[in-house]
Amino acid sequence: MAKKKINIALIGSKFMGRTHSNAYLKVNKFFDLPVEPVMHTIAARDPKDLKKFSARWGWENWTTAWKEVCQNPEIDLVDVGTPNHVHAEQAIEALEAGKHVVCEKPLAGTLDDARAMVKAAKKARKCQTFVWYNYRRCPAVALAHQLVKSGKLGRIYHVRAAYLQDWGGPDTPLLWRFQSKFAGSGAHGDLNAHIIDMARFVTGDEISEVVGSIEQTFIKERDLLEEAGGEIRGKGAKRRKTKGKSTVDDAVLFLTRFKGGAVGSFEASRLSTGDKNRNRLEVHGEKGAIRFDFERMNELEWYDATTDGKCQGWTTINVTRGDDGHPYVGSWWPQSHLIGYEHGFINQASDMLKVLGGRKPEVALPDFADAFETQKVLHAAIESARNRCPIKLSQIK
Amino acid sequence: MAKKKINIALIGSKFMGRTHSNAYLKVNKFFDLPVEPVMHTIAARDPKDLKKFSARWGWENWTTAWKEVCQNPEIDLVDVGTPNHVHAEQAIEALEAGKHVVCEKPLAGTLDDARAMVKAAKKARKCQTFVWYNYRRCPAVALAHQLVKSGKLGRIYHVRAAYLQDWGGPDTPLLWRFQSKFAGSGAHGDLNAHIIDMARFVTGDEISEVVGSIEQTFIKERDLLEEAGGEIRGKGAKRRKTKGKSTVDDAVLFLTRFKGGAVGSFEASRLSTGDKNRNRLEVHGEKGAIRFDFERMNELEWYDATTDGKCQGWTTINVTRGDDGHPYVGSWWPQSHLIGYEHGFINQASDMLKVLGGRKPEVALPDFADAFETQKVLHAAIESARNRCPIKLSQIK
Amino acid sequence: MAKKKINIALIGSKFMGRTHSNAYLKVNKFFDLPVEPVMHTIAARDPKDLKKFSARWGWENWTTAWKEVCQNPEIDLVDVGTPNHVHAEQAIEALEAGKHVVCEKPLAGTLDDARAMVKAAKKARKCQTFVWYNYRRCPAVALAHQLVKSGKLGRIYHVRAAYLQDWGGPDTPLLWRFQSKFAGSGAHGDLNAHIIDMARFVTGDEISEVVGSIEQTFIKERDLLEEAGGEIRGKGAKRRKTKGKSTVDDAVLFLTRFKGGAVGSFEASRLSTGDKNRNRLEVHGEKGAIRFDFERMNELEWYDATTDGKCQGWTTINVTRGDDGHPYVGSWWPQSHLIGYEHGFINQASDMLKVLGGRKPEVALPDFADAFETQKVLHAAIESARNRCPIKLSQIK
Amino acid sequence: MAKKKINIALIGSKFMGRTHSNAYLKVNKFFDLPVEPVMHTIAARDPKDLKKFSARWGWENWTTAWKEVCQNPEIDLVDVGTPNHVHAEQAIEALEAGKHVVCEKPLAGTLDDARAMVKAAKKARKCQTFVWYNYRRCPAVALAHQLVKSGKLGRIYHVRAAYLQDWGGPDTPLLWRFQSKFAGSGAHGDLNAHIIDMARFVTGDEISEVVGSIEQTFIKERDLLEEAGGEIRGKGAKRRKTKGKSTVDDAVLFLTRFKGGAVGSFEASRLSTGDKNRNRLEVHGEKGAIRFDFERMNELEWYDATTDGKCQGWTTINVTRGDDGHPYVGSWWPQSHLIGYEHGFINQASDMLKVLGGRKPEVALPDFADAFETQKVLHAAIESARNRCPIKLSQIK
Repeated sequence: MAKKKINIALIGSKFMGRTHSNAYLKVNKFFDLPVEPVMHTIAARDPKDLKKFSARWGWENWTTAWKEVCQNPEIDLVDVGTPNHVHAEQAIEALEAGKHVVCEKPLAGTLDDARAMVKAAKKARKCQTFVWYNYRRCPAVALAHQLVKSGKLGRIYHVRAAYLQDWGGPDTPLLWRFQSKFAGSGAHGDLNAHIIDMARFVTGDEISEVVGSIEQTFIKERDLLEEAGGEIRGKGAKRRKTKGKSTVDDAVLFLTRFKGGAVGSFEASRLSTGDKNRNRLEVHGEKGAIRFDFERMNELEWYDATTDGKCQGWTTINVTRGDDGHPYVGSWWPQSHLIGYEHGFINQASDMLKVLGGRKPEVALPDFADAFETQKVLHAAIESARNRCPIKLSQIK
Repeated sequence: MAKKKINIALIGSKFMGRTHSNAYLKVNKFFDLPVEPVMHTIAARDPKDLKKFSARWGWENWTTAWKEVCQNPEIDLVDVGTPNHVHAEQAIEALEAGKHVVCEKPLAGTLDDARAMVKAAKKARKCQTFVWYNYRRCPAVALAHQLVKSGKLGRIYHVRAAYLQDWGGPDTPLLWRFQSKFAGSGAHGDLNAHIIDMARFVTGDEISEVVGSIEQTFIKERDLLEEAGGEIRGKGAKRRKTKGKSTVDDAVLFLTRFKGGAVGSFEASRLSTGDKNRNRLEVHGEKGAIRFDFERMNELEWYDATTDGKCQGWTTINVTRGDDGHPYVGSWWPQSHLIGYEHGFINQASDMLKVLGGRKPEVALPDFADAFETQKVLHAAIESARNRCPIKLSQIK
Repeated sequence: MAKKKINIALIGSKFMGRTHSNAYLKVNKFFDLPVEPVMHTIAARDPKDLKKFSARWGWENWTTAWKEVCQNPEIDLVDVGTPNHVHAEQAIEALEAGKHVVCEKPLAGTLDDARAMVKAAKKARKCQTFVWYNYRRCPAVALAHQLVKSGKLGRIYHVRAAYLQDWGGPDTPLLWRFQSKFAGSGAHGDLNAHIIDMARFVTGDEISEVVGSIEQTFIKERDLLEEAGGEIRGKGAKRRKTKGKSTVDDAVLFLTRFKGGAVGSFEASRLSTGDKNRNRLEVHGEKGAIRFDFERMNELEWYDATTDGKCQGWTTINVTRGDDGHPYVGSWWPQSHLIGYEHGFINQASDMLKVLGGRKPEVALPDFADAFETQKVLHAAIESARNRCPIKLSQIK
Repeated sequence: MAKKKINIALIGSKFMGRTHSNAYLKVNKFFDLPVEPVMHTIAARDPKDLKKFSARWGWENWTTAWKEVCQNPEIDLVDVGTPNHVHAEQAIEALEAGKHVVCEKPLAGTLDDARAMVKAAKKARKCQTFVWYNYRRCPAVALAHQLVKSGKLGRIYHVRAAYLQDWGGPDTPLLWRFQSKFAGSGAHGDLNAHIIDMARFVTGDEISEVVGSIEQTFIKERDLLEEAGGEIRGKGAKRRKTKGKSTVDDAVLFLTRFKGGAVGSFEASRLSTGDKNRNRLEVHGEKGAIRFDFERMNELEWYDATTDGKCQGWTTINVTRGDDGHPYVGSWWPQSHLIGYEHGFINQASDMLKVLGGRKPEVALPDFADAFETQKVLHAAIESARNRCPIKLSQIK
């Protein structure tokens, strides 16, 4: 019997367009799914690039008219892979047209946008919503979530999260990522969004207060490019002789309290020299602790404080063993035949398609309401930094 | 203008069938190639599995008749992804039919087979041959090769290679990998083959002598399976109540001299408890040194002995930066967005297709003649172990 | 010609009494000093223990009368190795008697005490003062200081410091370290003191503001001991059936700004499960970065962002090479014959004795005025936590 | 009641003279011993240096007449800390005079010398003999020994040992360590001696055969020094314009079988660029495995293959917790306040003095007979290399 088809439309053909296309291409080669994903339509702005992109990745159709896509009765799932400032408009359009929606993270560029999206999601009762917090589906992070959930850490004392990159030095030009009107924020929305979501996901707890916060722009002016925009590093892009003002943060640090009593620290930076993609999470509980660093994404460090003290230590779990119950990796390769960055997206595609086919995801998927909790923390951190005072999350609606 | 098509036929649909299919599926999504790969035909023994496999991976045709495939005038490249004992027959058939051939490693199960393959390759002047020594195309290994080649290590003193796994404990049943008639050897052909190739590739030097060698079978008998064969761990397979004899090595260790004066050690094991896929290479030269461990495959450790001593140390290079010239990764993701095991195969597919399209590979590809040098070392190591004496490579023709 | 003798009196015979005695015993065996240290008198409260302690370590005299010691004309240097609440009284007595004074860290239990000590030190013009911030003299930390000082990091962006221990779980009884009246504070004065000093020492910069802070007591009540006090873990000590209130913090986290524009985070905890003595410092600048973790105290991680990108990475410097100019280790053993915790104290004893003999220390020694800057930060962090607002350091006199 | 005194005489005042003096100086400060060590006499060749050395370290007497020392009725223990070629003469003299003897490792420069020493030791029934295989008393190595002994590894499959240094590059002059007449051998006796002893100690097994071996001198000629001899690196020493021949190995590698069925590899080198003092041991058994690297000497890596597979991994045990039963460290500092190279010697001094006082050592001490087993392996490795054949240990008497 043929499987039900899920026709997918993807809006956006840049960095995320590529990771999502790759996910849809590969997901049914590795996972046994209840439905069949179809790469139906790709939508983006530049017709020339789009045609090439579409052919390369095997999208059946391409268009520059994203609104039409949302209205297309053939489409089942709309994937919003665009910059933050257009998430709300596109996601709401799709939801109102009765589509399932998966949106890139963070949910939106502003709290108001995010709130509107949650409202639209609630209204669209038959529609599933998802957000691409891909690191949840890194097997080591999913395992950390499972360990905490099964009680292995006990009462949690400490959460220590940092997402550190170093590509934003003074030589990096004024890409769209340094412009508030496109990106909403800098390292904060880009990187803190991920670690707030991960901390919530792994601990199963919610942040109750931002106690203090620093929002910092180290490099005030950057070289203007001939064309606004460009990909992350934009090395090839032509520079103008004038400089423009960076309107986003380079780094945001903040301290939190959690509802369950833990204390936490968060830090995102694009100027942490030497750290390439150091998405790091440490959680310490009464009975154990975990440490994760994306630069060694196939590993989870785990401390079991309940065993014979003589043999206690940090255990580096190579989270690649499907036979031993490690999440996701059973669908991939033999043990310690490592997987990479892109696999988080493929694993998420698998879980979304399972949900759309009536099954359960391997670990919890964030929907718009869930992602709104992360958005509130992002917002509170900036409020705290600007108003120089603690902010309780209960104040933010 | 449309690109020239390269019609590919793959023989074999097990573990390697999967990695090769994945490589052909993805290669033109990430690399700009001079030719267009077409997944033309998959050939294997079991029609039922094959049909499913073919549909899943998008092969245009499937067949159980590999000989016909070799004779099919539409096919350009035959990929031999079968067990070692049939490599020679299949590769020679394809070469004689004028096809380009890529063969799984090691080149063959016996030295005689390998020699015949080299002969056939020489005769088939218009045909390119390749061997799937995939670790050469792991970016960190390719970088190590480049560093040595550019003179950064100077005169080489030490080569220390080990490929250590632990899935072969007493509970593992008598899979085909433990049966000499299918596998030729155990850890030796499976794992030592890789590290001999890597050592040769990274140093650019050849082994001149095997000085001493141990061939060891720790587990003499293993549970028989209902069906001979099965995939690597075979957890699901049904066991019989009787045991059968393991006819391959569990571990082989040997010491070597290199033509250039270096001394080396090699070790492969399936019973190195705790080591999941620890493919490790250390090379020390007069001016510097490198260390690689596949369990952290995105990293290369590099020691530069020519700089200010106060700041000298082992540098962990995150080999993920295309902008900085790291091989292959420019076609993948931003820095430190790691890649995995499967990418070595995709990178090799890219290089082979470049060669077939008249371009140069990113780093040297092994052909049959090259792989024969590795085969000679494999052979010499066993001769040395069995005859309890040193073996000079020049003795082996 | 005989060297000038420096007669030392040590007050305190507990953990620090032991580390300081060991330092005086060994310092002239390993370092060539301009003066000769004499272990003249040990002073403490319990005569029975003291007699044994004195004999074991080779102190020439022992006494329970620390005031007399300060007045003894034979004494040149008074070492205050007692709990924080008596530092001021003892140090001031010694200074007023014209003695050089070295005091355990933090300078004092309160800002007022610390201020009085600085005043006394200023008045006692002929007296040298020192503070036992021993981690400055860990060779890896001293090297980090030298690298920053020589300009290798350039403009500094980030300081990330944490001192994490885990011995303070719910089973640990109410030792003196959990009682405010003896200890002043908990993890804060004990551990944050060290990392504030280290951050100041390594960066050469001063903290200008505490932006936000959390002071946290996770374990509110602990088992009472038969005797108040006891050593760190106090496993042997008898417990009463009743519980007493912990009056100190278990953890303190805070965010800072530095005068030079860097942003920083600090965290101290006694409940960071799995972290035994993880005194960790990360500093990122425009041109490079350093990382230190005391659990691998012989290593400094160093990132040089100015070299060929292809070989860039974190370099683990084994800071054990005297011939290559690594601080202190030339007086110890051959390269990579590691040193330990106690060597920081011996290295400091060497530097103090050099200063008392008219020479320069290997790297800067903290005097009372210097340690007062650290004390101000400790104070500001608590003020910020309690008043829930940022505190500028310029507000604190 | 006063403790019985043990009067110690030490022969040798170079590198080992220093480590042994330091051990005797400190041992009774940290350990509670049944006897009292007295630093009675130091003997060496150069009266000028000796006087200084003696004063610095607190030896009560000094002399250039080592034979008289052996005959001195006041002396209880003679410590032979001289180069290998004089071990036999000195140790036998002392044994014949009825002294306890502790000798530097390896037991001797030749098998004949070693055999004579064992004979003398047997004859001197009332005398205890010890050998300074100091790494046994590194807490992590002692813990590894205990884990294996308690059955935690089960049947042993693999032993992988390497002791790698890099100070012997072409610029290093012709120190005594490169002259066969003084040193007996190069890296082999210096470094392989240690790892053979460690492998025997940790596994509790004996080597039954050397299967193959390489003895290699990379640098055939080195700068002559004005004076023969000099300390390890000899940077300060004056060089002559002529070169002299190195008459020792720079590296020796060999493969072994163990009586219990394990296979092993050993390697020592002074030209392993980047490795400063990498004394590394890996042992893999059916139930678990251990890894040790002296460059991180406070850590033991331990793999427990008997626990829930989901949380299995290499556990880094910080072997610094006396309360949890880690050997030796309870006499030192709190957890993770690391110890260093010198502590192995102090720990051994403690164990020897315990034995002389009628108590048991913390872990087994090697006597001359035990060290002779290591000597036989050293000998067999060279025989195997030179005769190009396997050597069974049973052939060597």
